Amino acid sequence: MLEHEIPENIKSLSMDELTALCDTLRDRIIQTVTDNGGHLSSNLGVVELTVALHYVFDFPADKLIFDVGHQCYAHKLLSGRADRFDTIRKKGGLSGFPKREESDFDCYNTGHAGTSVSAALGIAKARDIMGENFNVIALIGDGSFNNGLVYEAFNSLRPLNTNILVILNDNGMSISPTVGSMHEYLELLSQDSHHREKVQKHATIFERFGFSYDGVYDGNDLGCMIEKLREVKEKLRTQSIILHICTKKGKGYSFCEENPQKTHGVASATSKPTTEYSQILGKTLTKLAEKDKRIFAVTAAMTPSLGLEEFFSRFPDRSIDVGICEEHATILCAALATQGIKPYYAVYSTFLQRSYDEIIVDICSQNLPVTLCIDRAGISGADGETHQGVFDLSFLSCIPNLTIGVPKDCGEFRRMLEMSADFSGPLVIRYPKDCKNSFPTTDEPIEAGCWEILHHGSGNVAILACGERALTIANKAIELSGEDVTLVNARFVKPLDGLLLDTMSEYKVVTIEDNMLIGGFGALIAQYFTDSEVSVKCFGYRDSFIAHGPVDELMEEYGLSAEEIAEYLRYEN
Amino acid sequence: MLEHEIPENIKSLSMDELTALCDTLRDRIIQTVTDNGGHLSSNLGVVELTVALHYVFDFPADKLIFDVGHQCYAHKLLSGRADRFDTIRKKGGLSGFPKREESDFDCYNTGHAGTSVSAALGIAKARDIMGENFNVIALIGDGSFNNGLVYEAFNSLRPLNTNILVILNDNGMSISPTVGSMHEYLELLSQDSHHREKVQKHATIFERFGFSYDGVYDGNDLGCMIEKLREVKEKLRTQSIILHICTKKGKGYSFCEENPQKTHGVASATSKPTTEYSQILGKTLTKLAEKDKRIFAVTAAMTPSLGLEEFFSRFPDRSIDVGICEEHATILCAALATQGIKPYYAVYSTFLQRSYDEIIVDICSQNLPVTLCIDRAGISGADGETHQGVFDLSFLSCIPNLTIGVPKDCGEFRRMLEMSADFSGPLVIRYPKDCKNSFPTTDEPIEAGCWEILHHGSGNVAILACGERALTIANKAIELSGEDVTLVNARFVKPLDGLLLDTMSEYKVVTIEDNMLIGGFGALIAQYFTDSEVSVKCFGYRDSFIAHGPVDELMEEYGLSAEEIAEYLRYEN
Repeated sequence: MLEHEIPENIKSLSMDELTALCDTLRDRIIQTVTDNGGHLSSNLGVVELTVALHYVFDFPADKLIFDVGHQCYAHKLLSGRADRFDTIRKKGGLSGFPKREESDFDCYNTGHAGTSVSAALGIAKARDIMGENFNVIALIGDGSFNNGLVYEAFNSLRPLNTNILVILNDNGMSISPTVGSMHEYLELLSQDSHHREKVQKHATIFERFGFSYDGVYDGNDLGCMIEKLREVKEKLRTQSIILHICTKKGKGYSFCEENPQKTHGVASATSKPTTEYSQILGKTLTKLAEKDKRIFAVTAAMTPSLGLEEFFSRFPDRSIDVGICEEHATILCAALATQGIKPYYAVYSTFLQRSYDEIIVDICSQNLPVTLCIDRAGISGADGETHQGVFDLSFLSCIPNLTIGVPKDCGEFRRMLEMSADFSGPLVIRYPKDCKNSFPTTDEPIEAGCWEILHHGSGNVAILACGERALTIANKAIELSGEDVTLVNARFVKPLDGLLLDTMSEYKVVTIEDNMLIGGFGALIAQYFTDSEVSVKCFGYRDSFIAHGPVDELMEEYGLSAEEIAEYLRYEN
Repeated sequence: MLEHEIPENIKSLSMDELTALCDTLRDRIIQTVTDNGGHLSSNLGVVELTVALHYVFDFPADKLIFDVGHQCYAHKLLSGRADRFDTIRKKGGLSGFPKREESDFDCYNTGHAGTSVSAALGIAKARDIMGENFNVIALIGDGSFNNGLVYEAFNSLRPLNTNILVILNDNGMSISPTVGSMHEYLELLSQDSHHREKVQKHATIFERFGFSYDGVYDGNDLGCMIEKLREVKEKLRTQSIILHICTKKGKGYSFCEENPQKTHGVASATSKPTTEYSQILGKTLTKLAEKDKRIFAVTAAMTPSLGLEEFFSRFPDRSIDVGICEEHATILCAALATQGIKPYYAVYSTFLQRSYDEIIVDICSQNLPVTLCIDRAGISGADGETHQGVFDLSFLSCIPNLTIGVPKDCGEFRRMLEMSADFSGPLVIRYPKDCKNSFPTTDEPIEAGCWEILHHGSGNVAILACGERALTIANKAIELSGEDVTLVNARFVKPLDGLLLDTMSEYKVVTIEDNMLIGGFGALIAQYFTDSEVSVKCFGYRDSFIAHGPVDELMEEYGLSAEEIAEYLRYEN
C-alpha cells in the first residue's frame, strides 16, 4: 500500500499498514472538513473503530447502520468513495450522511437521533424471514442513547427474536455534552472498566432487555477493537450484544480534542460569519428573563447552536437541556405553562417534527402559552434531505389555537419575542439561520395576525411574502422586473390578516415562502380566496425532497427563483 | 354517609365507610359505562388506589396526572363530578379523559401514552420555581411504561432536581396484553414481592435514574394503599419515588376480570354492531399474506381493534405488536422494507401523529414501500379532542413520495389493499371505523391517483368527495337539494387526478372531506386551481379542536352539514 492511499479492500493489510491507514483517514477528514465544513470531531473519534469494523466484517453483505450519521466519514472513505470524498456536502457530491442511493455500503439513511437500533432490528428480522445470513450492526453514540426510541427498540428485541450488535460509542458528548441519568450510568460503567465483576452487575440494565453486554473498551485502540469485534462476531450467531466502547471526540486533532462541542460540526474555512437569529434569541430572551422570573428555556442537546449558552449559564434554575428528547422537551414546556411559567422551547425545524403529537395534544389542545422558537427553518443547506426545515408551515398551520409568526428580519424577531412574553396562547416563531437583510419598519408593537405593507405599488400585483428569505427574493424579483409592485410583510402565517386580505380584491396576489408549496402559506391564501375572483399565484418548494447544497442554489432550484417570479411580475403587473 | 352516596370530602370516613365507597364507585362506573360506553376494566382496577389517593393527598392542591387517562373515572366521581357522571362521553357532558377545563382536580389533559412523567416533572419544576409546596403524582400503567417518552422523562429527573411520585400501576395489560422486555422485568419484580432483598437489587434500573423504588404492593388492598401512600407522602419531601403496585384490570366485575382486553373500552349497550374497516383489513391482509411471504404486519398495542388478531395468530413470524411505541413501529417497517419485506403498519390516525418525523425521514425520504393503514380517521367521536383523526390529510399531504388513498367503501378498501401488495413506494390508506355505506363500482383495478366519476350531472357543480363519509354527505346534500350534480370519488388525495381535474374548467368545484379544512384535500384543490378561473368551495372542519360526542352530530357541528352543502348546491348548480 502506498502512503496516503486508501485501498478498496483492507483485509490483507498488516497491523502497521492499518495504523498508517488510520492516520491517512484522519488527514483526509480534517482536510476535507476544513474545506467543505461538516461534522469533524465525531468523525475523528471513530476512525480506529471504523477500520476495525471494515477489517473484521464483510460489507456490504453485513449491514452497518449509523445512528444520526455524524460518524460515517471514515466509512465512506473505506467503501469506494475516497475519490469523491472532497465533494462531500457539496451540491451533487457525496452526502454528509449515510445514503442508500449513494452506495450499497450505506444500508439505511439516517439524520435524526435514536433510529439505529430500530432499523437494525428491522433489517435483522427481514434477514431471518428471507433465510439469509449476514450481520447487522448499529453504531450509536451516547448522545442518541438518551432518545426514547432506543428504549422502545430495546423493548422489542426479545419479541422479535433476532440478533443484532449494538456498538455504543461513548464519548460523553452528543453535540452538547451528554446529559441525564443514562449518561451518568454509562460513565459509571466506564469508570468500572477494570472491575469486571462490577461491570457485569451494572450490565443488568441491558441484559434485562435481552442483550449480552460487553464493555468498556478503548475505541481508539485499533488492536483492541479488532480483537473485540472478532469475538463479538462469533457470539453474534446466537445472541444480541451491546459492545460498549469509549472514544475521544476529535481524536488525533488537538484543537478538536480540546473543543469537541465547537468542532462537532464546523463551517468551511471560506464561509463568512454572519449575524444569526440564534444570537438575537439568546440576547432577547436573557433580557426578558431578567425582568420576568417566569421565563424558562428548554433545549434538546443544541444549546449553543440555538444561541442559549449565556441564558443557560445566567439562569441555571430556569433552563434545561434535556438531551436528544424532543418529545419530552415539548411536554415539559406544556406542563410548566399549566403552572404559570413561560416556557420557550428552541429547536431546529427538522427536529420539531419529532414533537408533532405533543404540539397538538399537550400544547395546543390545552391552549397553553408555550413559545416554540424554530431555528434553521426553510432550506438548511449542506446537511440535505433529512435536515431541511421546509415542512413546518405545512404541518403546523392545521393545528387549532396556534399562532405562527415569521419575522421579516432580526429586528422583527426581537419584537416578536418581546410580544411573546405576555402572549396568552401557543406561539411559534420561525426563522432561518442567518440574518442577512433588514427591512424598513415602524416602532408600533407587533400584534398577532397583523401584517405590514412595505410598499404600495401602482400595478396589479401584490406580493405576500413571509420571512426574511421570501422578502429578499421578492425584492430581487421586483428589481429584476422593473415593475411597481405592492409588497406585504406577511409576518403571521396564522392567523392570516383578514382585514388586509379583504382589501386585495383588485389585485393579483402572489405568495412567496421558504416552505413546501403543499399545505404552506400559499395554500392558506389560495383557500382564503377560493370563493372570490382574486387570482393567486404561489411560489414555494415543489413536491420533492431537497438534497444538500448551498442554500441559495437550492432555493432557486426547488422553486424560489427571483428570475421566474420577475417574469411573472412583468407579465401580470 | 348514606349508602351509595359519594361524599365531597372523604378524609373523615372510617375504613368501613371507605370500603363501602369503593363498592359504590364500582357500581357507578359499571352502570355508567354500560349505558354510555367507555373505558371499563382499566377504571375498575384503580378504585381502591384512587380512594386511597384522595384520602391521603389534598387535591386539587396536590396534582394528580393520569397517563392516557383510562383510569380517571373514580377520580372524577370523587372530585365533585358524581352528579354529572352519567353524562360522561356524551356531547356536552363530562369527558372520558382528564380535562382542565372541566375541573381544578384535573391538572393536565392526557389521551396519548407516556406523557405523565414528563408532565409531572414540568409541574413539579414550576412549583419549585414559584416557591410553592404541593405534591405531584403521575399514575401510569405498565402499558404506557413501554413508551420511550417515559424513559426520556426519567433521564431528566436528576438534571431537573425536583421531586415527584410515580405510581406504576401494573396490571399486565395496555389495551392488548403488555409486551416487551420492560414488561417481563416488571413481572419479575412482582413475582419477587416477598423477597425484599431481591426486589431491592432489581430496583437498580429505577434507582439509576434517581428514583427511590418501593414495591410491589397489592393496589386493590385499600388498607395497604393508604398505609403506603402515607409513607410515600412523607418521603416525597426529599426524594422522587416509584411506587410499584399490582392491580387486577376489571377488578370486582367477573366478566371484566376474565375478559380484560375486550372490556378495556366498551361500546354502550344500545350501540349497534356494524361492519368495520378493521375486519376488512384483517381478512384481506391474511389472504394476501397466504400468497405473499413478504407481507408483515406491525401494530402498537391495538392488534384486535385494528382487526389483526387472526393475522397475528396465523403468521406469528411475520407480525409484531411492539407495545405503545409508535415511532419504533414506523422505523421497524422502513427497515424491513429496505430488505424486500412488505410491511403494513396499522394504527389509529391520532396515534400516527407520534410517528410524524419517522414517516418523513425513515419511510418517505428513503421512498420505501411501507403501507400505513390508518384506522379511526376523521372524527372518532366519544373520546374527544385528543383522539380525533382529523389532521392526517393535512400533515401527510406535504410529504414527498407519499401516495394517500381514501377508499369510498369497504370494497374499495379491499381493492386498495390488493393494489398495495405490489406498490413500489410509501402508501397511506385512510379510513374511519364503521363501514356504513357502499357505492357502485367497476371491477377495473385501482390505480394510484386515479379518481372515479360516480355520476355525470347536468348542472354547474361537481363535487369531489374523498372517503365514505364525505361521499355519504355529498349524496345526502344532493338528495336534499334536488339538484343534478356531478359526483366524483376522489379516492386519492395524493397524487391528485390531474387529468380529471383538467376537465373541470367549466364547473364550480366543491370539495368534501372528513378532515380539517386547513391543509386538507380542499386546500390541495384550491391550490391546483389558483391559476385558473375555476371557483372552488371547500367543506371540512373549521379551525378548532373537536370535543367528544356522537360522530354524526360532531361532523355537522364542526363543518360537514348536508343541509349547508345542499343550500350551496341549490344556489350554484
